[in-house]
Amino acid sequence: MSEKTTPRILQGFSELLPQDQFIFDTLMEKIKNTYKKYGFCSIDTPTLELSEVLLAKAGGETEKQIYRFMHYDNDLSMRFDLTVPLARYVAQHNQDLVFPFKRYQIGKSYRGERPQKGRFREFYQCDADVIGSETLDINYDAEMVCLISDVMKTLNLGDFRVRINNRKILSGFFGSIGLGDRITDVLRIIDKLDKIGLDKVKSELSEKGADEKQIEKILEFISISGDNKAKISALKKLNAGELFSVGVEELETVVTTANNLGADESNISIDLSIARGLDYYTGTVYETTLIGHENFGSVCSGGRYDNLASYYTDKVLPGVGISIGLTRLFSLLKENDMLGSVTKEEKTAVVLPMDSERFGYAAKVVSRIRESGISCDIFWSDKSGKAKFKYASRTGADFALAIGETEETNNTVTVKNLATGEQQEVALDSVADYLK
Amino acid sequence: MSEKTTPRILQGFSELLPQDQFIFDTLMEKIKNTYKKYGFCSIDTPTLELSEVLLAKAGGETEKQIYRFMHYDNDLSMRFDLTVPLARYVAQHNQDLVFPFKRYQIGKSYRGERPQKGRFREFYQCDADVIGSETLDINYDAEMVCLISDVMKTLNLGDFRVRINNRKILSGFFGSIGLGDRITDVLRIIDKLDKIGLDKVKSELSEKGADEKQIEKILEFISISGDNKAKISALKKLNAGELFSVGVEELETVVTTANNLGADESNISIDLSIARGLDYYTGTVYETTLIGHENFGSVCSGGRYDNLASYYTDKVLPGVGISIGLTRLFSLLKENDMLGSVTKEEKTAVVLPMDSERFGYAAKVVSRIRESGISCDIFWSDKSGKAKFKYASRTGADFALAIGETEETNNTVTVKNLATGEQQEVALDSVADYLK
Repeated sequence: MSEKTTPRILQGFSELLPQDQFIFDTLMEKIKNTYKKYGFCSIDTPTLELSEVLLAKAGGETEKQIYRFMHYDNDLSMRFDLTVPLARYVAQHNQDLVFPFKRYQIGKSYRGERPQKGRFREFYQCDADVIGSETLDINYDAEMVCLISDVMKTLNLGDFRVRINNRKILSGFFGSIGLGDRITDVLRIIDKLDKIGLDKVKSELSEKGADEKQIEKILEFISISGDNKAKISALKKLNAGELFSVGVEELETVVTTANNLGADESNISIDLSIARGLDYYTGTVYETTLIGHENFGSVCSGGRYDNLASYYTDKVLPGVGISIGLTRLFSLLKENDMLGSVTKEEKTAVVLPMDSERFGYAAKVVSRIRESGISCDIFWSDKSGKAKFKYASRTGADFALAIGETEETNNTVTVKNLATGEQQEVALDSVADYLK
Repeated sequence: MSEKTTPRILQGFSELLPQDQFIFDTLMEKIKNTYKKYGFCSIDTPTLELSEVLLAKAGGETEKQIYRFMHYDNDLSMRFDLTVPLARYVAQHNQDLVFPFKRYQIGKSYRGERPQKGRFREFYQCDADVIGSETLDINYDAEMVCLISDVMKTLNLGDFRVRINNRKILSGFFGSIGLGDRITDVLRIIDKLDKIGLDKVKSELSEKGADEKQIEKILEFISISGDNKAKISALKKLNAGELFSVGVEELETVVTTANNLGADESNISIDLSIARGLDYYTGTVYETTLIGHENFGSVCSGGRYDNLASYYTDKVLPGVGISIGLTRLFSLLKENDMLGSVTKEEKTAVVLPMDSERFGYAAKVVSRIRESGISCDIFWSDKSGKAKFKYASRTGADFALAIGETEETNNTVTVKNLATGEQQEVALDSVADYLK
């Protein structure tokens, strides 16, 4: 047994030390609780699916990245997102679901791409979607705005902006200026505005055959300014056909209902330059920017789609959804020293019996504290007092509860606040309250 | 797009409808919160690992069940339990961890075995382990007894028994009656007592060469009765060598400390017939039985081991751990109509605007309720009132909040308790309190 295997994980996979894992879990918990607060139920689909099912729609780049293999007679793939499994789930269980079906799923997805900075082969996504049967009211799109806004507030990562647009406005407008046959190209180029800048957008538009006048109109359009109300007014004045008008009306409803639902106007911004994915979204689209950290890109995105599961069913299933790439977000926060702003919800304690004679009394103290619901550890050890306090602070506990002969005689505990260093002898009967 | 792929999942994989998923999540949450209350931190290791690392120790049956495949140049395997990844994690991050290292991990594991009733190819395990560096105090074994007991109480599955034994007692005793060279065989047979019954145990022992006198002594030994104190006394009277005595002393400490930590004596039972795995455990062992559902087998098991990670490191890492197979437990509970006893912690509401004119006021009501922390859905729809109430009850909400013209005028909400059918008009300002 002298030959040892070097313990290591795969490149592109991430695992955290306990302190960081705690923060990661806290972020995940906050997202989950906000999704639940909005009435989303959870589902949990298998990580492995039949390739025939999972890849019914995939192709090109996505397919190349799949972890796919044969197991006996089965051609299997690991899921690469949570949307395809949702489509499969809704098509499969259609008869047993209540529509609109509001579900969240938080889980790992897998992409076997070449590892590079900020890209993960195993990553958490936190998705929330509402799926309608045949139709889905536009007000659900407004709820998603509030949901994003609420999540961002709970995560406490500073000021942020939920940017909203509507693909119908884009398609309608570009059609009206004679670029209807190149909408996909134009959207793709506009979508890169944040990344590549104005000049590059101009030259790319020109390459696609837009003339100067068209480029001017495009730039004029995406730079419509003012608050949301002013933007809606400006849009209403443009006469760009029926699709365009429907889009403007939808956008207005989304903004109005989001306000009624309590969203903070200052966090919500109509942004006519965002377009999101190319073929997928058909109406409202969302991106979320952390102010001062625009280089993070969008930290929560999504939008409205016409039909979720056409590869599996004839049923028409329109939906609206959002997604947070938590593994990526966490790694950005860590890189930028922003993990400190994630607030810990509960205090924790560790009991330190000063010698093994105190184990019996110490056990009773621990029992009392745990009963009150407070997380409490105990260090069973005959090491030095110094080593004991070191254990307490290294585990990240808020309080060390020292127990020696005096404390046992007095039926007390000496509570040390590990952040401030303050120390106080507290009666056993009131120690749980004291910690709270 | 008329060719549809049939939406389905792999045999041996499980996915739940929302109502069941809610109960599953509730069970998982309760387990997690209890682990946290005992001071365990969480870790989250990759689902995919290098086969060389993950299978360093495996072999035989286990290895055959692995989902293993090549991805470009990498030989990869999906994890088949959470213990090997723990060993790898502790060996790899040894320098950065605080010992004793108390970690829990709740996650999916994979075994590609032939699907059969009650066996899953993808399943959740909920593990908690304490790992010492070089040594680990026996009192940690006692904490695990309380942890199991607390978890079982929280899960609210009825009366249960945590059965405890110590492998040193077994090895010591069998050595002392001249069966020291067949300990593994004898333990394996005794371990099956619950499954195969007394007569079969006798005949199998005899097949392994135990004579009548030895069999008699074995049966006498495993039938030592009385409460825990009486059993310890009886064991102390046996003179079966040093290893045996150490085992008895450990068992006594475990029972005493568990009592001091507040464990209920009636839930904890010394059971000299349990042995658990064969090569792995070296001291304390645990099994947990649901009274009246002994056929479930053990629903939470574990024990003490001498060295966690010898395949990865020269460091000696003794540990003690427990595991709950949640996917299996859930499926047993469902099969036996026991999901009803899992208590829902929080009430949920759904707002039903009676017509689209009420959407604005309804949005304000929703916002108010969500702000108070209560989960609140809203049904944006112009369907009939009946369809609206049907939606509310089918989603499993506790309260439907109907909003018509009257309510908007009066600044109220009509709250219907969907369990009792009671209905009451409540002022908007007090509706959140009313729901609580």
